[in-house]
Amino acid sequence: MENVFSFDRLSDFSTRIFKQMGCTDADANLAAKTLLSADLRGVDSHGVARLSGYVRLWEVKRINARPNIRIVHERPGTAVVDGDAGPGLVVAPKAMQIAIDKGLVTGAGFVSVCNSNHFGIAGIHAMMALEHDMIGMAMTNASALVAPTFSKDRMLGTNPIAVAVPAGEEAPFVADFATTTASNGKLEILQRKQEAAPEGWVQTADGLHTQEADALKHGGALLPLGGTREGASHKGYMLGSIVDIFSGVLSGANYGPWVPPFPAYVPMPQNMPGKGIGHFFGAMRIDGFREADDFKKDMDRWLRALRNASSIDGQPAVVIPGDPERASELERRLDGIPLNEKVVEDLRGLAKKFSIGF
Amino acid sequence: MENVFSFDRLSDFSTRIFKQMGCTDADANLAAKTLLSADLRGVDSHGVARLSGYVRLWEVKRINARPNIRIVHERPGTAVVDGDAGPGLVVAPKAMQIAIDKGLVTGAGFVSVCNSNHFGIAGIHAMMALEHDMIGMAMTNASALVAPTFSKDRMLGTNPIAVAVPAGEEAPFVADFATTTASNGKLEILQRKQEAAPEGWVQTADGLHTQEADALKHGGALLPLGGTREGASHKGYMLGSIVDIFSGVLSGANYGPWVPPFPAYVPMPQNMPGKGIGHFFGAMRIDGFREADDFKKDMDRWLRALRNASSIDGQPAVVIPGDPERASELERRLDGIPLNEKVVEDLRGLAKKFSIGF
Repeated sequence: MENVFSFDRLSDFSTRIFKQMGCTDADANLAAKTLLSADLRGVDSHGVARLSGYVRLWEVKRINARPNIRIVHERPGTAVVDGDAGPGLVVAPKAMQIAIDKGLVTGAGFVSVCNSNHFGIAGIHAMMALEHDMIGMAMTNASALVAPTFSKDRMLGTNPIAVAVPAGEEAPFVADFATTTASNGKLEILQRKQEAAPEGWVQTADGLHTQEADALKHGGALLPLGGTREGASHKGYMLGSIVDIFSGVLSGANYGPWVPPFPAYVPMPQNMPGKGIGHFFGAMRIDGFREADDFKKDMDRWLRALRNASSIDGQPAVVIPGDPERASELERRLDGIPLNEKVVEDLRGLAKKFSIGF
Repeated sequence: MENVFSFDRLSDFSTRIFKQMGCTDADANLAAKTLLSADLRGVDSHGVARLSGYVRLWEVKRINARPNIRIVHERPGTAVVDGDAGPGLVVAPKAMQIAIDKGLVTGAGFVSVCNSNHFGIAGIHAMMALEHDMIGMAMTNASALVAPTFSKDRMLGTNPIAVAVPAGEEAPFVADFATTTASNGKLEILQRKQEAAPEGWVQTADGLHTQEADALKHGGALLPLGGTREGASHKGYMLGSIVDIFSGVLSGANYGPWVPPFPAYVPMPQNMPGKGIGHFFGAMRIDGFREADDFKKDMDRWLRALRNASSIDGQPAVVIPGDPERASELERRLDGIPLNEKVVEDLRGLAKKFSIGF
């Protein structure tokens, strides 16, 4: 059963929860805005459904509500930002702003972040570049759930990549995707429906092909994009590795099997090499390369060509990255955000815990 | 049947061919070095096997042997380079050097290239950054052979991405991969062996699943990494799109279905929006982010962790990106480069055409 809530109501509630955690008003607003962008854009797994998870991380002192987010090393076009264990929902937009500021000066600004936490959806950070006529990039590492090709060990996270590109008359191009075949969220949906997982999504603890959607609960692993060796899963493994190196190794965060888990009850890895979770952000001025108007005309032509490519009989039209999320946002701002009963219970629990209304 | 030739012999021969085309001595050496790096690294499809293809492009005046390769627009950390229709094998390393020079100043240098031709393997350009303790990136668009998810039209090239990352005691991480499930070269190998193509590699002209390795000859298309909708081919389509936008749209080169084909006998697309083929290069100083020695220690730990991950029973060890190519180079520098009979005939034909020895 689903209940529908207005954006404003969920946003106000989330803001109050972040304030209860001790965030400043500005940070609470920013965290809620970042969190809710996932619900608006239809990425239900990364939105308000995770609010109680963030609270639990704060309760076990893995999230610092009053962080001193700062540049610890920099050059004109680069920096490492230490998030001081702050909420990733706050650290990420602040670090992305530094990438933008640097990019405005040099043409290309890149920031690697250590000592952060989960930052919500990657796409919303990349999109911050758009209003400056810049291309935005965002990626993050995450706790290890993915086995590299040939291995049974979980060594990498789902490590998403987002790229946002401005256009002219057309809406911007916004790609945002995990470097695995399927996310854990998609497997959870199959579990609820008691359906089988397609080939190339998961493997058992022994590394064998399985259709069991709950394989991860029994020591199995997600598979890199490509899924099988024949399907070129080594390419997904390389992509996930690049995200991990840029986010974790370049910043001094944790990486590979040492990235801290999101659920507060999961024990932390042993012998962690760095601080917190790592992100990586980039912002490139279009007019660092060519006149922005010329670029936008070509980008419009690119978008129209792809949108108008012939569909296979019985299949939908080619999807422009960012279109489905934009449609979801339009709809949900008007009609509200549907939440499943489990999430609503969670939010009621938070309201009770902090003695605030919901 | 295969014949084995020493690296020096193939390198000298290729250099002489590029000189016959009118390249300067320095450019001929550079082009041959770039071309042969593919043979050394085991990417036989992109090496000396393509030499006659480059000659044919020069014959139809699509390659300019004496290009004025120049920056046409720049900021401190960015530039567009116009390759003046020069050989991509020369344009690419020169543009990558500009990315490195800019990155040495600002921390992060990015260069988009228009008016170029095929540049060989992406990895060798990305690797130029390594000796400067920088992370290198290289990508290129290519003529459209790939159908986006849901479409039967060829709209994108195989659009490879390469990323090279320095390490300390360990060898560097070098990823270099097409954003499709399989390359056209791999399909050609199946055709020669008369074997079936695995699911997710190609589709027919109508967009239907097929195991026919020669589907491209009948109007079919390669599939983006992920292969099928269930396998998340939309992610491969997004990756290929990002490469096309960074290489083609950002530079003022051609993009999407308008990228010129490699075979000189294939007609050029109509209404081309830009100039030649596009590339994209990046170079980031490690110490733009953190001390290079600290990074390298962590990178060594990352590499060892991945290398030592447990294998699935009956499977080989986890492969570190760059290891197979490095092993191939060691072997082929010593034992020579095997070429198939067809390639040898091709080279003999070139020797005859230019009246030089082989």
